[in-house]
Amino acid sequence: MDMAARLEALEKKVRDIEDKEKIRECLYVYGFNADLGRSELWVDGWTEDGCYDLEDRKWRGPDDLKDLIASPSNPHKSIENKSQHTMLNLFIRIEGDTAWAEGYSATIVKKAPDHIELWGCAYNHFDFVRSGERWILKYRLRRNIGGPEWGGKAIRRYLEEYGPRAKA
Amino acid sequence: MDMAARLEALEKKVRDIEDKEKIRECLYVYGFNADLGRSELWVDGWTEDGCYDLEDRKWRGPDDLKDLIASPSNPHKSIENKSQHTMLNLFIRIEGDTAWAEGYSATIVKKAPDHIELWGCAYNHFDFVRSGERWILKYRLRRNIGGPEWGGKAIRRYLEEYGPRAKA
Amino acid sequence: MDMAARLEALEKKVRDIEDKEKIRECLYVYGFNADLGRSELWVDGWTEDGCYDLEDRKWRGPDDLKDLIASPSNPHKSIENKSQHTMLNLFIRIEGDTAWAEGYSATIVKKAPDHIELWGCAYNHFDFVRSGERWILKYRLRRNIGGPEWGGKAIRRYLEEYGPRAKA
Repeated sequence: MDMAARLEALEKKVRDIEDKEKIRECLYVYGFNADLGRSELWVDGWTEDGCYDLEDRKWRGPDDLKDLIASPSNPHKSIENKSQHTMLNLFIRIEGDTAWAEGYSATIVKKAPDHIELWGCAYNHFDFVRSGERWILKYRLRRNIGGPEWGGKAIRRYLEEYGPRAKA
Repeated sequence: MDMAARLEALEKKVRDIEDKEKIRECLYVYGFNADLGRSELWVDGWTEDGCYDLEDRKWRGPDDLKDLIASPSNPHKSIENKSQHTMLNLFIRIEGDTAWAEGYSATIVKKAPDHIELWGCAYNHFDFVRSGERWILKYRLRRNIGGPEWGGKAIRRYLEEYGPRAKA
Repeated sequence: MDMAARLEALEKKVRDIEDKEKIRECLYVYGFNADLGRSELWVDGWTEDGCYDLEDRKWRGPDDLKDLIASPSNPHKSIENKSQHTMLNLFIRIEGDTAWAEGYSATIVKKAPDHIELWGCAYNHFDFVRSGERWILKYRLRRNIGGPEWGGKAIRRYLEEYGPRAKA
């Protein structure tokens, strides 16, 4: 392969690596904004048609998502500034200007002066779209650990790559 | 340095970065397969002579590993689909077609409707071998947090790089 | 853009990616050294004027930091070899030979034979300086989850990039 082709191949690889880090950052910032009560910024991390697919209902679009994160009638509001939304085991694939990820969420909450607990943990599938220099969330499917729906509903696309036996 | 040499140096660095991400993916997929009861796929993530070195015994090869993950007489089976195997603080080094990592494992389990707990946490050393486009596990040494064997038995090779004082 | 310029741009990007991984490694090693009672090495991970800014006081310089990590009169000593210091959601920015990161810390402790708990969780801002082939810590601001000071005091610089609405 000549140098021009090698350089181009390398540029593509580096872009993929950078995009994966940006996907992680998108999810970390999602957590920061949720935990620190920056509700407007949290909503801005979603596309206009963004959909948060929970077991009991789907939350769609800015008004609905704003209500989910900021309304005192929803559970999130009660944990602001005493929570840490973390994302773990993130398996990510970039496909041009869209991307997906699968992995675990674990929300840590300080419930009492001497008690910190794992408040909510779940299996997740995420879909993203590129937006300028960053990525934003278009869809999140979240299914509770040990919940009524099998975790494999959320953690499944990784199988396209890792499912069949791959040893040489 | 001329351009050809710089390009080659860069290709090497990018390959190292990609390999580290693949090592992380190997461990994330290990967790997905364990948590979702995909026992065959979990076993396929190990080499034929793969060894899981636990405090009480060593589990070696596909039959032994299959028994560990899928037999109702072993504790793992009781947590399927209500667990999240997570891997944290992964310190990774690639050495050609082998690699090693050291870090923490933390398994989250939903024990009761209102109770999620840290079921098992440990210090780990992992050895990997390259297998086509991915990496598979050859050896895992796991030592329980606060257990009878010191954590430094598992988390030790990082010292080869970080042990001596490195400040200029 | 000609090949020389593209190569140079790519070298810069790869260096940034490598530096981010080294920042993560600095924090992972910080955890390994703390958890395994390697107090001298833990102190060596800080600059000579390193400062650990906790809610009740600031710990400054090697003697002070050594006292914090190794003195039986401070709480850390009681958890050695039964703890896992983890760092999560790390948002990192490299600025030449300095860098900063913001994210969550969660310390897991085995408190009793059947009980592992989240012992301490916090919001953090970290400042680093380059030291040869690695990075060391110059400043850590840590504010307890649900503590008297708002988490946004620690998690704030990410807003310079993610604060304004960024959708196209």
